[in-house]
Amino acid sequence: RVNGDRLWDSLMEMAKIGPGIAGGNNRQTLTDADAQGRSLFKRWCDDAGLTMGVDRMGTMFATRPGTDPDALPVYVGSHLDTQPTGGKYDGVLGVLAALEVVRTMNDLGIKTKHPIVVTNWTNEEGARFAPAMLASGVFAGVHSLDFAYNRRDPEGNLFGDELKRIGWVGDEEVGARKMHAYFEYHIEQGPILEAEEKQIGVVTHCQGLWWLEFTLTGKEAHTGSTPMNLRVNAGLAMARILEMVQDVAMGEQPGAVGGVGQVFFSPNSRNVLPGKVVFTVDIRSPDKEKLDRMRAKIEAKAPEITDALGVGCSIEAIGHFEPITFDPKLVTSVREAAERLGYSHMNIISGAGHDACWAAKVAPATMVMCPCVGGLSHNEAEEISKEWAMAGADVLFHAVVETAEI
Amino acid sequence: RVNGDRLWDSLMEMAKIGPGIAGGNNRQTLTDADAQGRSLFKRWCDDAGLTMGVDRMGTMFATRPGTDPDALPVYVGSHLDTQPTGGKYDGVLGVLAALEVVRTMNDLGIKTKHPIVVTNWTNEEGARFAPAMLASGVFAGVHSLDFAYNRRDPEGNLFGDELKRIGWVGDEEVGARKMHAYFEYHIEQGPILEAEEKQIGVVTHCQGLWWLEFTLTGKEAHTGSTPMNLRVNAGLAMARILEMVQDVAMGEQPGAVGGVGQVFFSPNSRNVLPGKVVFTVDIRSPDKEKLDRMRAKIEAKAPEITDALGVGCSIEAIGHFEPITFDPKLVTSVREAAERLGYSHMNIISGAGHDACWAAKVAPATMVMCPCVGGLSHNEAEEISKEWAMAGADVLFHAVVETAEI
Ligand SMILES: NC(=O)NCCC(=O)O
Ligand SMILES: NC(=O)NCCC(=O)O
Repeated sequence: RVNGDRLWDSLMEMAKIGPGIAGGNNRQTLTDADAQGRSLFKRWCDDAGLTMGVDRMGTMFATRPGTDPDALPVYVGSHLDTQPTGGKYDGVLGVLAALEVVRTMNDLGIKTKHPIVVTNWTNEEGARFAPAMLASGVFAGVHSLDFAYNRRDPEGNLFGDELKRIGWVGDEEVGARKMHAYFEYHIEQGPILEAEEKQIGVVTHCQGLWWLEFTLTGKEAHTGSTPMNLRVNAGLAMARILEMVQDVAMGEQPGAVGGVGQVFFSPNSRNVLPGKVVFTVDIRSPDKEKLDRMRAKIEAKAPEITDALGVGCSIEAIGHFEPITFDPKLVTSVREAAERLGYSHMNIISGAGHDACWAAKVAPATMVMCPCVGGLSHNEAEEISKEWAMAGADVLFHAVVETAEI
Repeated sequence: RVNGDRLWDSLMEMAKIGPGIAGGNNRQTLTDADAQGRSLFKRWCDDAGLTMGVDRMGTMFATRPGTDPDALPVYVGSHLDTQPTGGKYDGVLGVLAALEVVRTMNDLGIKTKHPIVVTNWTNEEGARFAPAMLASGVFAGVHSLDFAYNRRDPEGNLFGDELKRIGWVGDEEVGARKMHAYFEYHIEQGPILEAEEKQIGVVTHCQGLWWLEFTLTGKEAHTGSTPMNLRVNAGLAMARILEMVQDVAMGEQPGAVGGVGQVFFSPNSRNVLPGKVVFTVDIRSPDKEKLDRMRAKIEAKAPEITDALGVGCSIEAIGHFEPITFDPKLVTSVREAAERLGYSHMNIISGAGHDACWAAKVAPATMVMCPCVGGLSHNEAEEISKEWAMAGADVLFHAVVETAEI
């Protein structure tokens, strides 16, 4: 079993970097806080005797050597970046539990045939730079390096410039590494495990996603002196599209979600009807047909709404991954580890996207999940217990060591 | 008649300060650009032989003496601040035409019994600090100085601190000045004069306004892993309230408007359902009963919408003025001036709020309007012709000189 106290202490130590305003974290990717978090993680990896490699996306790979020089490594990781008002565990638990797996192996003097690589992927959250899971996406060949470097944050800063600014452009070609397997441990970010009173989620699938960025063009005009019939009201069109997205998602229940987290009005002045409204629709389903049908419905209905108001509408798909089926053999190894350790468990579908989804394109991959209080995540109040954290880390430890072969 | 070329040149000169991104201006109140605009205006007033007084709200009063030491001054002005993406004429025309009136009087050696005071009110727009017409509101005793100083911009800066920072805290007590009359010349900001092919709007009334600031409290949560039935979706509630406001305004046609120009999602991240949505509803009508009925309907229906979604809703009235009837004698002087000068004219109700609305509380007041292209204002593309600008300035000149008595 892993050392739960050490894992917890590391989580609390990391949470001091980029503190939020309500007990959580704001350690968004490629900020100074991210750089600080990376340095702390690197120090811990050094202390554990790992060798750090960094690729041109800034992803950190800390290697514990194996006994067979020809054996491909088992990768274990997640991400240290957070949402602007994020929790202390989303991503961080997966990276620090991977480190704890290696620390425990060191304690116990365990040697494996396959090397173990503790991994911290850059920009998993996609909060500052869309899309999410950007570095793992480049790793898996889904995006080009050039595409990634040219992503912009809301202030207009380029991903490539910011990566350079914080000093984490590595020299490794992205995706050059080959994996024997990829494991990722994560909090569920949803309510199921807690409701079902299970300690471990055996993650069999991940639902797919579309991010549809809408740009609505209205006519900037005075809210007081512009008669109702002369308005070209992009804000009203936005409101109708939000309602329509809700309808579309409700029409595909169960097994589908749809909503909007980000809206920009321009010029965003109380007495100016917006000339431009930009917002991103987030739709997901584990069922590819449902997912694509939702997109098609939304793209068909939105122009009807905007045309009726004379508002211009353009839609760009700025994020996408298909529903994923994780590797059955690795899934079984997770389930058997939970069984062996006496932890209650159930199969679960990941509602959120993870770097494991892209890793699954280039290697056998799977995930382990633990519950989180009230299913809450992407919220500073995100919470888990030390016992939950530990149980999942134990399962990760067993599954990883088994896959890496003693 | 005034010197139209000189007026136009001054307008173009002022427009160089705080240039926008599309041909208009961003000279928001109490910014460095505002300070620059004030300095240029002061220089012009000095050149015209005027004496500058500044009150503790930063409002600028440039006096041309009268012949009777006991006669109260005639005030003529508007504002030099703009929207973030504002036009070159909204407010500026009224201040620089007032200056042109005095310049023309100087040219012609006209002496009046009553002094003339060219006025630049601080923070008319209300874009950076709500409410609009803040300085004239304090002048009229509607707001306290303390209230005004404690207004905050979206970055959290205090009005009082920013006024100090740009160096325009004057020493005059706000509202100590007494007025014989107040005139304000402004572009219509609506489509009526152009459509009716009239050169001059004789402004008889101004419609009243409520600004209702909504704060909706949802539950910040992951857009992917939070099932539809567990969402506390403040964004969806906002969408429904926008639609409801539209319905309420349409139900009071004609003679009422309602809309939303400003929306803030928090944390405003693509994969986070907003924990908080703040937005301001702007409703107006020249009919007090309609105006108050709209407010009552909105305040009754909003909680039904939010309750159904489990979303918290608080509503604060952050801006208000009642419908105004301008002084009949001054209105007549404007109409007769237009008549005398041979300009086509019609009665009109101001759709926007103006400093004249607050001045009307403490003095006889009225306005003159000229058309603007397509009725467009609060838009960088706001446009008028030199001829339109001049016609209104001529009317202003005649009405002001008549009221100030030769
Ligand atoms: N796990 C997680 O929150 N990832 C961010 C990408 C997503 O929105 O699913
Ligand atoms: N004239 C003008 O645009 N004033 C700003 C206050 C308002 O919104 O009416």
